[in-house]
Amino acid sequence: MINSAANKQVRRVVNLVKKARARREEGLYIVEGIRMVLELLPEQVEQIYVSESFLRAHQDKELSAFLSMFHWEPVADPVMKVMADTQTPQGILALVRQRHYTLKEILNRPPAGQAHHLIILETLQDPGNLGTILRAGEGAGITGVVMDEMTADIYNPKVIRSTMGSVYRVPFVYVSDLKAACQEMKQAGICLFAAHLSGEKNYDQQDFTVPCGFLLGNEARGLSQDTALLAHTLVRIPMAGRVESLNAAVAASVLMFETARQRRIGKNCKNH
Amino acid sequence: MINSAANKQVRRVVNLVKKARARREEGLYIVEGIRMVLELLPEQVEQIYVSESFLRAHQDKELSAFLSMFHWEPVADPVMKVMADTQTPQGILALVRQRHYTLKEILNRPPAGQAHHLIILETLQDPGNLGTILRAGEGAGITGVVMDEMTADIYNPKVIRSTMGSVYRVPFVYVSDLKAACQEMKQAGICLFAAHLSGEKNYDQQDFTVPCGFLLGNEARGLSQDTALLAHTLVRIPMAGRVESLNAAVAASVLMFETARQRRIGKNCKNH
Repeated sequence: MINSAANKQVRRVVNLVKKARARREEGLYIVEGIRMVLELLPEQVEQIYVSESFLRAHQDKELSAFLSMFHWEPVADPVMKVMADTQTPQGILALVRQRHYTLKEILNRPPAGQAHHLIILETLQDPGNLGTILRAGEGAGITGVVMDEMTADIYNPKVIRSTMGSVYRVPFVYVSDLKAACQEMKQAGICLFAAHLSGEKNYDQQDFTVPCGFLLGNEARGLSQDTALLAHTLVRIPMAGRVESLNAAVAASVLMFETARQRRIGKNCKNH
Repeated sequence: MINSAANKQVRRVVNLVKKARARREEGLYIVEGIRMVLELLPEQVEQIYVSESFLRAHQDKELSAFLSMFHWEPVADPVMKVMADTQTPQGILALVRQRHYTLKEILNRPPAGQAHHLIILETLQDPGNLGTILRAGEGAGITGVVMDEMTADIYNPKVIRSTMGSVYRVPFVYVSDLKAACQEMKQAGICLFAAHLSGEKNYDQQDFTVPCGFLLGNEARGLSQDTALLAHTLVRIPMAGRVESLNAAVAASVLMFETARQRRIGKNCKNH
């Protein structure tokens, strides 16, 4: 039982919560809350911490059976408050091993019978947007996320929370050279579309049933000219009123769910 | 020139930034930042405050011509920092009059030739989601937003910022009785759809070219049973993977842009 916030393990957790660099160096990240912790498998987890009051409130067999598979340690409530990133911590927190994919692995692993549906992010900065794109993306059936290194850290606790678990399931990779990565995707037969204000074609007039990747840019600046040039087609989401651009997660969602819709319809037609 | 943070006007602004009740009582809200302030008209504005360094940085005719139409007051930089809701204030901030619509006004005012496209929110709590729905909604051509009183305060500075100006243009109303409001919309010939996990029909199999309203519920609990029963049709956004639900702003956006898409296609067909 850890009683002091000065404990070495507590300081380690606080570092992992706060610093992308500590997460990178240790190859770990933090998952908070019962829902996301319960989805973890023993091989993913280094350590679980549980607060006293959480243990008292969950004196059931289910929790003890779960915890028995892991290294875990009880901590005093005030210590959990120091460890956690949230203001009212749920009382359970896991140190989880990062999982690294290469672009090649992602390109080689679309589930059987499914065309690639990739999201490619250039310098997306808002952690909430990144997490929302992962969560909505899993729902829309994306096959991976490719990001440049200026994109927000996916292991930021805020991103992790907003993925609601999708971070465990959607493969992703940070690439040091986004242009080279785009070339590699094109060589693998993936059609690249860029959401762009100067796009001449409406997004819904395109065929997204082919293997495709969607390039999305920074919240304030959009895609850089260089990157936009790598796309086969610039597409526009037509906009009413005086709206100039959409929130990045909204723009991504509109494109991802249009892709899902077209692929559903395509399948239905083939079945008839 | 206001030099002291103890000044009465400064305390008033701070109250309006922080307290929904103060905003309600005064019928005012705060708009920060040059982009959103420049869209304001004199009749909307009670007062504008500009920081010293902002004035120094914008010694152009355009700004003085703009400011000359308003009551405005220079403030010392540290005072602006106290007034503003943002950590690095841009240096310009306006006290804006709230605009109130009734449900009847909203129902009577769809622009000529346009079918209603309403968003109906039950107890949506996250200010960022609300702002994003307004912004994406204007882009998708919605004709109004109807909210129950437990929904986040649209005049919260965080909502205002994330609307990027849509709050000036999209009509909205808070209603004390959401069920009565739904009945009124139905009587006005509006077809109500509810995004619901137990929806039997996929959203894209519905006809959204008719006058329609979309019911969306609380981020954690979804729509209440009672409210969902008021909808003509429960619709489902089909989901791949293990995703159970979407972020509220994403779900709203998928429905709103599907509506925009169907109406675009409908129009194109008629033109041929």
